[in-house]
Amino acid sequence: MANSRIVPVEVMKNFIQNIMIKLNVHPLHAENLADVLVTGDYRGHFSHGLNRIELYIKDIQQGTCKKDGMPKILKETSATAWVDGNALLGPVVGKFCMELAIKKAKESGVGWVVAKGSNHFGIAGYYSMMALSHKLLGMSFTNASPLLAPTRSKEPFFGTNPISLSAPSSSKNDDFVLDMATSVVALGKVELAHRKEEKIPHGWAIDKDGKTTDDPANYHALLPLGGPENSSGYKGYGLATLVEIFTSILGGSAMAPNVRNWTENHIEANL
Amino acid sequence: MANSRIVPVEVMKNFIQNIMIKLNVHPLHAENLADVLVTGDYRGHFSHGLNRIELYIKDIQQGTCKKDGMPKILKETSATAWVDGNALLGPVVGKFCMELAIKKAKESGVGWVVAKGSNHFGIAGYYSMMALSHKLLGMSFTNASPLLAPTRSKEPFFGTNPISLSAPSSSKNDDFVLDMATSVVALGKVELAHRKEEKIPHGWAIDKDGKTTDDPANYHALLPLGGPENSSGYKGYGLATLVEIFTSILGGSAMAPNVRNWTENHIEANL
Repeated sequence: MANSRIVPVEVMKNFIQNIMIKLNVHPLHAENLADVLVTGDYRGHFSHGLNRIELYIKDIQQGTCKKDGMPKILKETSATAWVDGNALLGPVVGKFCMELAIKKAKESGVGWVVAKGSNHFGIAGYYSMMALSHKLLGMSFTNASPLLAPTRSKEPFFGTNPISLSAPSSSKNDDFVLDMATSVVALGKVELAHRKEEKIPHGWAIDKDGKTTDDPANYHALLPLGGPENSSGYKGYGLATLVEIFTSILGGSAMAPNVRNWTENHIEANL
Repeated sequence: MANSRIVPVEVMKNFIQNIMIKLNVHPLHAENLADVLVTGDYRGHFSHGLNRIELYIKDIQQGTCKKDGMPKILKETSATAWVDGNALLGPVVGKFCMELAIKKAKESGVGWVVAKGSNHFGIAGYYSMMALSHKLLGMSFTNASPLLAPTRSKEPFFGTNPISLSAPSSSKNDDFVLDMATSVVALGKVELAHRKEEKIPHGWAIDKDGKTTDDPANYHALLPLGGPENSSGYKGYGLATLVEIFTSILGGSAMAPNVRNWTENHIEANL
């Protein structure tokens, strides 16, 4: 690419961390966010890396995301826990929950932790991958701002509700990592086609009338994995619901269409 | 339908149970199978009900499925267990594992049980739904005989590897039940189109050359949920792999293409 420039990972991390520290975010929280965003970029999820920094900045500036504090365990058993993220940065809450799940998995064989009061936490895969160095399987889910229209509907209801599973390999650098939205594609792919003035495949998105469209300019909502009904889009709808059950419904946080839109930084995300 | 006849559930159950008892299957095992198959039919999964009885009969006749005995717990923690199904009927092993998972969930908050040495267990939803009366969430997975070709391949590798989640509702008859193959559709839908001499939608299946086909006569393998690559079939491929990890890889049973074909009743299924 013309004028492209390679930037070392550590430089990128420091850049993000310093932005947050300037906003008076606790240095460890700033470090957590930087590590998650750079990992997203490094793995090629450019929609979940540095390009999202504006969202995190605005949330901090508006006070809907807190600069300091700790997530709190509200209730727990030997293998499960319910956590209040206290409106801290998503990566702070995500790491807290996954570390707790790993501890419980080591003690009980499996650990399952749900949170409320969290924020956008970057790539789901970051958290499932935390289990790998412990030679454990890791899973991670989150609900998100509405973008996905369920089968036979035409308005966004669910977020892109990702599912992630990481499984350690006995060989080096051969771990399995699944990290996928339960929509056909991420919104970023539609936006990219729009900027490039390209068509999108039928089955990615619907227009305001609920019809599938190949014109990204007519985008109104994403379709669930599977696309239209005759290619089993209702299965992606079912999987998005599964994620919603594991997240907002178990956690008692904002559910499906009640989650704020991306741009509503004055409202707590409460993921 | 012409000449169709309504048969009471109990009559169907007794019919299946008596077939198994005639084959010297333990009466309780026969009852388990009958209950699972009739539940499949009753919920409209006709591919997983009475029409599969021949498979179970042949497995029993060949001795690859055992008539009597008990599954055995090989290893356990407070929240997990590894079970050897001892080649018993799938519903016997499935019920044993789910009852164990429910017991552990009540004690530890979550229970996760994997099995090897099992057989075709009918609809996955039967087992996840067992959790509902305990007001628990239930999940169930199984691998199966190869039918699904991974993205960029043309040979069947995975089974239709279903994912099931059941979640209890506080309202009566309003529980959530997801029970879906991770292929676009079940093979039965392709077979049905073939019998009716109808076309199938592009994206359900591929022919011997790995191209998508709308002619069920040219069927060679199912595509994963999402269909071809440009509509994100690799996500269905990822989900089928997730199921394989949760089943054969964790359980130590026959994996993916090493699972026998449907008709090879002389080989133990070892699911």
